[in-house]
Amino acid sequence: MSVGLSVQDLLTPVAVIDETVMETNIKVAQEYFDRIGRNFRPHIKTHKIPALAALQLAYGARGINCQKISEAEVFADAGFTDILITFNMLGKSRLDRLKLLNTKVDLQVVADNEVVVDGLSSAFSGDQPLKVLVECDTGAGRNGVQNPDAAVALAKRIDASPGLVFHGLLTYPKASSETAVETFFSETLSLLKKAGLECPVVSHGGSPSLFDSDLVPSATEHRAGTYIFNDRSMVRAGMCDFDDCAMHVLATVVSRPTENRAVLDAGSKALTSDLLGFSDHGLLIDYPEASIAALSEEHAVVDLTKSGKKPQIGERVRIIPNHTCVVSNLFDRLVFHRDGVVTRIETVAARGQVV
Amino acid sequence: MSVGLSVQDLLTPVAVIDETVMETNIKVAQEYFDRIGRNFRPHIKTHKIPALAALQLAYGARGINCQKISEAEVFADAGFTDILITFNMLGKSRLDRLKLLNTKVDLQVVADNEVVVDGLSSAFSGDQPLKVLVECDTGAGRNGVQNPDAAVALAKRIDASPGLVFHGLLTYPKASSETAVETFFSETLSLLKKAGLECPVVSHGGSPSLFDSDLVPSATEHRAGTYIFNDRSMVRAGMCDFDDCAMHVLATVVSRPTENRAVLDAGSKALTSDLLGFSDHGLLIDYPEASIAALSEEHAVVDLTKSGKKPQIGERVRIIPNHTCVVSNLFDRLVFHRDGVVTRIETVAARGQVV
Repeated sequence: MSVGLSVQDLLTPVAVIDETVMETNIKVAQEYFDRIGRNFRPHIKTHKIPALAALQLAYGARGINCQKISEAEVFADAGFTDILITFNMLGKSRLDRLKLLNTKVDLQVVADNEVVVDGLSSAFSGDQPLKVLVECDTGAGRNGVQNPDAAVALAKRIDASPGLVFHGLLTYPKASSETAVETFFSETLSLLKKAGLECPVVSHGGSPSLFDSDLVPSATEHRAGTYIFNDRSMVRAGMCDFDDCAMHVLATVVSRPTENRAVLDAGSKALTSDLLGFSDHGLLIDYPEASIAALSEEHAVVDLTKSGKKPQIGERVRIIPNHTCVVSNLFDRLVFHRDGVVTRIETVAARGQVV
Repeated sequence: MSVGLSVQDLLTPVAVIDETVMETNIKVAQEYFDRIGRNFRPHIKTHKIPALAALQLAYGARGINCQKISEAEVFADAGFTDILITFNMLGKSRLDRLKLLNTKVDLQVVADNEVVVDGLSSAFSGDQPLKVLVECDTGAGRNGVQNPDAAVALAKRIDASPGLVFHGLLTYPKASSETAVETFFSETLSLLKKAGLECPVVSHGGSPSLFDSDLVPSATEHRAGTYIFNDRSMVRAGMCDFDDCAMHVLATVVSRPTENRAVLDAGSKALTSDLLGFSDHGLLIDYPEASIAALSEEHAVVDLTKSGKKPQIGERVRIIPNHTCVVSNLFDRLVFHRDGVVTRIETVAARGQVV
C-alpha cells in the first residue's frame, strides 16, 4: 500500500483526489441546499465509491442516485438504503433484480414511456409496490416525455398500473434552463393536482445548474454528481475555479520528439476521449498554454507551440480532465491525498457496471 | 454462466465477439504474412485476453506486443514467453518490474530518447541484458526519433550502454505511408551497417497497413491489433467489410421521446467517446441511415431523421464500434458466440492496465 507516500512517488498515469478540496466541494454544495431547504441526492456515477457516498450522506445528503441496476446493487450491498435509479429499465432478468432490490432498500426508478411502465408493472405486485417518477425532457434532448400533458398521461398510467406507485417528476436539464424547467414542472404539477394525483418528489438535477437550483422553486430535490470532484467543464460552466478541481491525472513526459511536441504516458485509457465540447483533452495545470492535441490509448501528444515553457523528459505533469466521471470509470482504484501525501486508496467499486 | 444461451437473451449493453469471423480474421492475416515471409506479432491491446493471443500464436504468430509493463506482466503470468513492449519506460519501480520480467521471458522494449536509454541501462546489467529497439517517427507524429541519423545515434548509445543490447528499429506508421517507412528504414539500415551495428529486427506495424506490409521490404516483422476484431475505422480504411467485424455492441432502445429520436442503453461507458475521425459514435447495422449523434455515460441519442425505418422501444440493436480496442477496455468480460449461440465468456484479463 502507498499510504504515507508522496503522490510524486506513484507510478503514472494515476488519478489522484485531493481530500481537502473534495470535502469542501461536498460541504459547500450541501450548505447551499440546506440554505434553500431542498433535499440533495448525489449521483454516485462520478466516484462509484461507497465511502465517498457515505461522506456525502454524513454532510446531509438525502439518499443516492445511481444510473444502472448494477450500480445500485453495489451500493445496496454496501448498506445504502435510499436509492434512485434514473434509467428506463427493460428486460425480464433486470426487472427480477430490480424486484429483489426493492425488498432491500427504499427504491425509486424512472420511466418516460408506456413500454417501460408496463414492463415494471408486470414484474411488481401490490404488497411491495415500486415508486416510479416520470422523466421529463425539459430541453436536454435525451430521455423524457415531451410536455406536461404527456407527463400527466404517463403518471396516470403508472397510478393505474398494478405494483406501481406514481411518486413524482424528474428531469436532467440542459445548462442554464431553469425557467424552462420551472415552467414544465409547475404546469405539470397543476395538471396533476387537477387529476387528483399526489406528487411527492420533483427532482431537478445537474452539477452545472447546482447553485441555480433555487431558480426552480417547484423542485423538492436536486441530483448532481460531478460537483464532488469538479473538472474542466465545471470551470468552463462558471461553477468553480481550477483550485476546486479535486481530481488530477498525473502523467509523465516520456518523449520530446520535436521542439514543440511532448508525449505523455496518459492516453484515452486514462483521460478518455470525452471532449465535452473542448478541442483538446484536458488542462495541463503547469503548462496552461500547451494543448493535449491527440490521444491514442496510452499516449497523449502535447502541442507546445504556444507554450514558452517546455517540459523535459521524465517530468511529471498534472492534468485536470475535461470530464471527471468518465475518468473514474477507467481506473480500478483512485488514490486520495492531503497536501500530496497519500491518505487512502479506494477501489472504484461500481466501475464498469453498465447493465 | 450464459454458455449455450442466445446472445439475444443477454442483458444489454454487452460486447459480443463472433468466433467464426474472428478466426477468419486471424487466419487471413497470418496467411498473408506467411506468404510474404514476415514474422507477425499481434498487439494484445485489442482483446487483452490470453486465450485469444494463444489462438493467434497457434495460427503462426511469432510473439506478442504489449503497450505497458502491466499488460506484459498479465501475459507473462499467463505463459507467454516472447513479448515486445512498445512504450518508453521510465521510473525506478517500473524498471525494477521490467528487470524481473526480463528474467522470465524473451523481452524487447523500445526507446526514442537518451533519458529512457540511460534509465534502462541503470536498471539492467550485463548478465541478463535487455533488448532495445529504436522507435522511429516515420510520419505518425507520436513518439520516435525524427530521422535516420538520430536513429543511428540512439542505436550507438544503446550499444554503448551497460546492460542493454541494440536489437533493431520500430515504427508505428501513419496509414498509407509505406514509401516513407521504407525510405526511413533502408537509410537507417545502411547507416547502421556502416557503423558496424547489427539490426536483427525491423518492426513495422498497424492494422490499417497490414496487407501492405510487403511494400516495406526492409521490415522483418509486422505488429497489429485491431485486425482480430476489425471495426468501423478498418472498413473505412478499406481493410475489411462490415461482415468482417467480429465485435458488435448489443444495445436496447429504451426510449423514443420523439419521432426522430431514439435512446439506447449504451453510452460512453460501452462505446467510448473515441470518434476516430467519424462524426458519430458507431454504426447501427440494421439502421445504417440512423446516426448515433451523442453519448452520455449510459445513454446514446440516435438521430433517426434520415432513417426510413424507426426502431421500437424494447428492440435490440447491433452496433459496430468506431474503435474496437477501446471498447474491450471498458468491459470486464467479452462474450463469444457462434451463429448467435454463446460459446464462452472470457475475462478481459489486462483491462485497465495503464501503468
